[in-house]
Amino acid sequence: MSFDYTVNQECPETKARVGEFTTPHGRIKTPIFMPVGTKATVKTMSPEELKEVGSEIILSNTYHLYLRPGHELIEEAGGLHQFMNWDRPILTDSGGFQVYSLSDSNEITEEGVTFQSHLDGSKHFIDPEKAIGIQNSLGADIIMAFDECAPYPAEKEYVEKAVARTTRWLERSIEAHARDDQALFGIMQGGMHRDLREKSAEEITEFNLPGYAIGGLSVGESTEKMLEVLDYAPELLPEDKPRYLMGVGTPIDLFEGIMRGVDMFDCVFPTRVARNGAVFTSGGRITVRNATYKKDFTPLDHECDCYVCNNYSRAYIRHLIKRNEILGLRLTTYHNLHFMLDIIHNIREAIKEGCFLEYREQFYNQYGVEK
Amino acid sequence: MSFDYTVNQECPETKARVGEFTTPHGRIKTPIFMPVGTKATVKTMSPEELKEVGSEIILSNTYHLYLRPGHELIEEAGGLHQFMNWDRPILTDSGGFQVYSLSDSNEITEEGVTFQSHLDGSKHFIDPEKAIGIQNSLGADIIMAFDECAPYPAEKEYVEKAVARTTRWLERSIEAHARDDQALFGIMQGGMHRDLREKSAEEITEFNLPGYAIGGLSVGESTEKMLEVLDYAPELLPEDKPRYLMGVGTPIDLFEGIMRGVDMFDCVFPTRVARNGAVFTSGGRITVRNATYKKDFTPLDHECDCYVCNNYSRAYIRHLIKRNEILGLRLTTYHNLHFMLDIIHNIREAIKEGCFLEYREQFYNQYGVEK
Ligand SMILES: [Zn+2]
Ligand SMILES: [Zn+2]
Repeated sequence: MSFDYTVNQECPETKARVGEFTTPHGRIKTPIFMPVGTKATVKTMSPEELKEVGSEIILSNTYHLYLRPGHELIEEAGGLHQFMNWDRPILTDSGGFQVYSLSDSNEITEEGVTFQSHLDGSKHFIDPEKAIGIQNSLGADIIMAFDECAPYPAEKEYVEKAVARTTRWLERSIEAHARDDQALFGIMQGGMHRDLREKSAEEITEFNLPGYAIGGLSVGESTEKMLEVLDYAPELLPEDKPRYLMGVGTPIDLFEGIMRGVDMFDCVFPTRVARNGAVFTSGGRITVRNATYKKDFTPLDHECDCYVCNNYSRAYIRHLIKRNEILGLRLTTYHNLHFMLDIIHNIREAIKEGCFLEYREQFYNQYGVEK
Repeated sequence: MSFDYTVNQECPETKARVGEFTTPHGRIKTPIFMPVGTKATVKTMSPEELKEVGSEIILSNTYHLYLRPGHELIEEAGGLHQFMNWDRPILTDSGGFQVYSLSDSNEITEEGVTFQSHLDGSKHFIDPEKAIGIQNSLGADIIMAFDECAPYPAEKEYVEKAVARTTRWLERSIEAHARDDQALFGIMQGGMHRDLREKSAEEITEFNLPGYAIGGLSVGESTEKMLEVLDYAPELLPEDKPRYLMGVGTPIDLFEGIMRGVDMFDCVFPTRVARNGAVFTSGGRITVRNATYKKDFTPLDHECDCYVCNNYSRAYIRHLIKRNEILGLRLTTYHNLHFMLDIIHNIREAIKEGCFLEYREQFYNQYGVEK
């Protein structure tokens, strides 16, 4: 099938835009935030709840699924959608990022990467062909090329080599890709170097892929550094293709990324902090497990109309979290994802109505952000 | 209000019966199984899911709620129903059983019990007045008298004293009870001794309470011993009042208790084993976390029509549980509670249709029980 991306509206004041991307499991609207279901489940949530909070697409991790339960098993189950009971679009990453950041050790050659599992120390080899093969087995709607993500900080010379290798590996990824019902996205690297980002973008866009990602950010650099790259990086990618900023996604990141031309985001942040008892509210982030909320019988966010805020108090949720009760983690996760997807929805509407910057200003003022 | 219990149908072959009990939060049908929400939550489940699986009433534990978050806080929240977002009936126990079995140490006198919290070693004193006061604050529909549950095994002399004290404490419990929108149930003790059970029943039924419980079972004795007591104990309690067998509830216990005249059950067993990866099926209990189910793409129970069995495979649930994913615990808990409440439903129907023993035989044959 062809993976069409249509830009429906552009913000006159920023690079923000509203669009639609077609996949075998339905259309997704952009900008979009993808909740992360690392091990074939978005932690604590059921598929029905994911839909309730407005998830149009989720991300799952090739590295984790390859190790456990194994992609062959998932293929035998009928693919990842069937295995996890999710009938909307899925994006899988290539596993590269986890191989570099999570594995006990790894050795990179032109051929591929040898690494040790962080679970049991077992040795594995992955290369572009294997990363794509695994993703073909999993059957996600969008799959990612196998890239080399340089660590941060790194010598420029190293980053330059990683950019060149990423291009060569992209070519091998495309060659290996065997299913035309999966959109393969290429990944731009280049670290914090504008000339390398330009080089990477130039090389990967040659392949005319259905979408492109900005990799190598959110790897330990400061927010300022990240925004510096985002000031020019999205525009190096084609206007008529979705631009996906990998691993990024606080509420503020959404605004800052979107106004710089980013269309897609994923991040474990909203769900991870939720499990630590922290929730987003229109007045900023609060840690509901703190003693302050012991007798606070108001909802997590008085402006939120989600299931959690309609039915539970901060005091009850704090009690659950303090007592390690699973329902507590469910409720904070549910609310945080609802909060993120509500922002995304509001941003889309604001772009359509030509008032993105006003909405951003209003949100920031209330959230307590200094611009 | 008056707490009416109506027996609608009796089994001609056994002591099983079908009835209805009216509470401020609605009627409950008997026989009934009450899922346990120890700390104001049935572990892993939302209130909506509890309703989906057919829960008509849940139990919560006074001891735990008294320690954390404290009954005053729950009262301030508007009571336990409001606090935990559950609008159907609730039963709270008196805290006695946990004081004897869970606390770090305890000292029993005629006045009451001094005990140390299992959480932080802090010293507390509880007596009938306090146990009822706490339950009045929590606001459950059914509350339990403060009793003395003798350990097992115990000298008969000790059990006899516990029976007498339980009666005196019942009188104090009734005296202290200050809310007529809560039904206070008395508890029969007497260990494994028929004469003491008779004495206890005779004494507590004097008070003409809206319901009575059989305490002091499921405290470590064998199933044979328990059934020996159940062969006569329920009938020692009034026919026109619900009879509640405390802390008991495997699938088989339901059949064995109900045929001996028991109307109400509660037990952590179905939810606890679920969190260990064990599930009930029509063919018996299986441990779905075992390697046997690694590539088993069939539902937990092919005869079950619950949400879990309609949407997920054993292989997926095993994967989730092996990876410590919360959704795995949610799915096994959901299915096990559905299974228990489905049995309860079927038993009621069988009693109404006069075929209880046939249903029991059919269930046992399939479940693999030797009678
Ligand atoms: Zn909310
Ligand atoms: Zn089921």
